Amino acid sequence: MRIGELSRRTGVPVPTIKYYVREGLLPPGELSSPNQAQYDDAHERRLRLIRALLDVGGLKVAAIAEVLGAVDDPGRPLHKVLGAAADRLGSAGGAEDDAEAETARTAVEELIARRGWRTHESNPAAADLSRALAAMGRVGHGAFTELLDEYADAAELVARADLGYVSRRATVEDLVESVVIGTVLGEAVFSALRRLAHVNASARLYGADGVGREGRGGGVGARGEG
Amino acid sequence: MRIGELSRRTGVPVPTIKYYVREGLLPPGELSSPNQAQYDDAHERRLRLIRALLDVGGLKVAAIAEVLGAVDDPGRPLHKVLGAAADRLGSAGGAEDDAEAETARTAVEELIARRGWRTHESNPAAADLSRALAAMGRVGHGAFTELLDEYADAAELVARADLGYVSRRATVEDLVESVVIGTVLGEAVFSALRRLAHVNASARLYGADGVGREGRGGGVGARGEG
Repeated sequence: MRIGELSRRTGVPVPTIKYYVREGLLPPGELSSPNQAQYDDAHERRLRLIRALLDVGGLKVAAIAEVLGAVDDPGRPLHKVLGAAADRLGSAGGAEDDAEAETARTAVEELIARRGWRTHESNPAAADLSRALAAMGRVGHGAFTELLDEYADAAELVARADLGYVSRRATVEDLVESVVIGTVLGEAVFSALRRLAHVNASARLYGADGVGREGRGGGVGARGEG
Repeated sequence: MRIGELSRRTGVPVPTIKYYVREGLLPPGELSSPNQAQYDDAHERRLRLIRALLDVGGLKVAAIAEVLGAVDDPGRPLHKVLGAAADRLGSAGGAEDDAEAETARTAVEELIARRGWRTHESNPAAADLSRALAAMGRVGHGAFTELLDEYADAAELVARADLGYVSRRATVEDLVESVVIGTVLGEAVFSALRRLAHVNASARLYGADGVGREGRGGGVGARGEG
């Protein structure tokens, strides 16, 4: 198909498609004449993936280029592709060295040992976890670490579901793309579900929707609803 | 304390502190002389909260202003504060109206009904969930909706843990701040845990770290480790 048809099918404007080609996100079309290129279903699929990572995953163009580069490189081990996809969470910060950082790192090491997780404290996700916990400690919420095992139970549930989904994919290309989509878009899915579950849990705990702060606890045990 | 001392204690440069005051994130200090202001522990605590929301939560200054405005407004119902904190996930997009959007909306409605969640399809998080699922559908991963109940189980676990934590806080001020911190920073915690659990699950499923794509499945059942 021509670029105009690709644009119509995907809803992506022609100049934007050309920009993605220039940035290396999308392979160029095949030249059928000096100034006309042909695109196929693979282009359409890739374009939809780019839009999903941009619009729902919140990735920047540079991050998408990196992730797609990993997807397209058959020699790249699977866990490296996963790492590239996860990097969009961008732990910008260097390690800090106050008491909270030390406490958080210890809590993470103990968690990994306690769960028997086959991972290492040097994993970037472990550093991100320490950073988040240390930040909570600095605002007086060090007690949040008490929730770590409940959070870890939930993370294991999600990871098992994801891996089960990925392992059902037929081809390796499918598998890698599934890992990327699962990591980036699956996070958006879980984030939305967590907020919905919060609304539900707080409606049950604090009563119906619209209760002000002074109504805290007033709705507990309310009957005749549901 | 003077602004220099506040800067030393928190590691935030003086011009940055002044910028936060101008933007309304931080209340001004109390003037002890025409060109000298005094800051107290509440300023220090607020400043640490701002940094945590910025650095770990990834919120922009405008989003923080909105969230802190909600925290500081005692008439604002708790669930509105929660909504302001959750808004940083910024569903930029308008609703789309293709077949995938329709399928996703139906899946979300059915999920909410099936789980008996006391929430409504009009909740912004429900719209975000639909958007993420529709995006997956458009890249050929509509089957991801099969994982929704496993994801929802995990989200309920996390929400119960969060609410349990929040309900243990003594004062209302604490409670509201806990909700904000839990929503924003708790998401960073869960995201990191999910990635760690992925590494663990794939190490168990596909063998040791560093296995290439061609080694997929080769490590399943490997013994003598762990």
